[in-house]
Amino acid sequence: MAGTVFFSVSMSLDGFIAPESSEELMGQQWMELQQWVFPQRFFRENLKLGKGGEEGRDNDILRETFERTGASVMGRRMFDAGERMWPEEAPFHTSVFVVTHERRDPWERPGGTTFHFVDDGIGSALDRAREAAGDRDVRIAGGGATIVEYLDHGLVDEFSIAISPVLFGAGIRLFEGVDAGRVALEQVRVEPTQRVTHLTYAARNR
Amino acid sequence: MAGTVFFSVSMSLDGFIAPESSEELMGQQWMELQQWVFPQRFFRENLKLGKGGEEGRDNDILRETFERTGASVMGRRMFDAGERMWPEEAPFHTSVFVVTHERRDPWERPGGTTFHFVDDGIGSALDRAREAAGDRDVRIAGGGATIVEYLDHGLVDEFSIAISPVLFGAGIRLFEGVDAGRVALEQVRVEPTQRVTHLTYAARNR
Repeated sequence: MAGTVFFSVSMSLDGFIAPESSEELMGQQWMELQQWVFPQRFFRENLKLGKGGEEGRDNDILRETFERTGASVMGRRMFDAGERMWPEEAPFHTSVFVVTHERRDPWERPGGTTFHFVDDGIGSALDRAREAAGDRDVRIAGGGATIVEYLDHGLVDEFSIAISPVLFGAGIRLFEGVDAGRVALEQVRVEPTQRVTHLTYAARNR
Repeated sequence: MAGTVFFSVSMSLDGFIAPESSEELMGQQWMELQQWVFPQRFFRENLKLGKGGEEGRDNDILRETFERTGASVMGRRMFDAGERMWPEEAPFHTSVFVVTHERRDPWERPGGTTFHFVDDGIGSALDRAREAAGDRDVRIAGGGATIVEYLDHGLVDEFSIAISPVLFGAGIRLFEGVDAGRVALEQVRVEPTQRVTHLTYAARNR
């Protein structure tokens, strides 16, 4: 069987995964949302921020999420924001398929990340990601609108949300515009840590 | 020390606690949101629906929430919807302070629930509820707008959310319009059950 299609995000308790504009990506609430990630050993290693870091369950979850991912799919807006922010050695180290309307040649980064630009729809991007992932899983990396499109089409098998104890009040909502009547969920795993609660759900269409 | 001020609600994974209109209160998603409550022994006893029912952690949580509550505060919209739906023996069995602009005499129901109508603000309603509650806690019963008002004013000490594996897509959001920058949260307890995840947070102003 082919790998699982999943997403994994950090969400505020009121449902946001990002501020309205990428300029606010260093704002206080965003930092609080991601606070469980920054001190982890795996995060620091992967972004070459230095040795050391925490090694508890939060770190394991980051590492497991990375290791299961054979390829990623992302929306154009996430790519545009990331293109300015990722280090030269982008943190994916696999193929990444960007859903876009623009034709563009693959963009190869040092460290194994290659961005492929797919202009014929989300199904095609997923097919190519599955093929690239082999036995590993495909991660729908984001952002919110892209995740909702895959959910609405029944193309997500499961997902994990790290709920942080922070309220945003405004920003980009994870489930904005989801076709709620079509998506059935099942709670499959709950892992609280000191900083957040990791919730995992199976998804299917109904 | 006086009792704790808390709220306790069921929330969809996308942040909703009720449908847009009370006519939809029997819709499929609403039923799924509350599905963890209906089979519980305490819920059935309290609403005189008959003997029997489940007795696990979900049931204990319902019972503990009821038993700690010495008085409740609710908004006018919640009262209006409930006035039509609660059985004659309303399920509170304590004093309930309704924040309203209307003057109205107390309304006493069989079984110990008395609704008091408070027309001079949320602080006054809370003061009266604290006095009525004695050593027990005060529950901000809802709805969303009333909960947010108390949160914004730093008047909520802690709260519990039962997150159900359901998406609403539309309806009344728990944290709609919250003054997010003023509310600091701390995750204090996580209890997953078969049906939902019970998250408890401490709140304070910052």
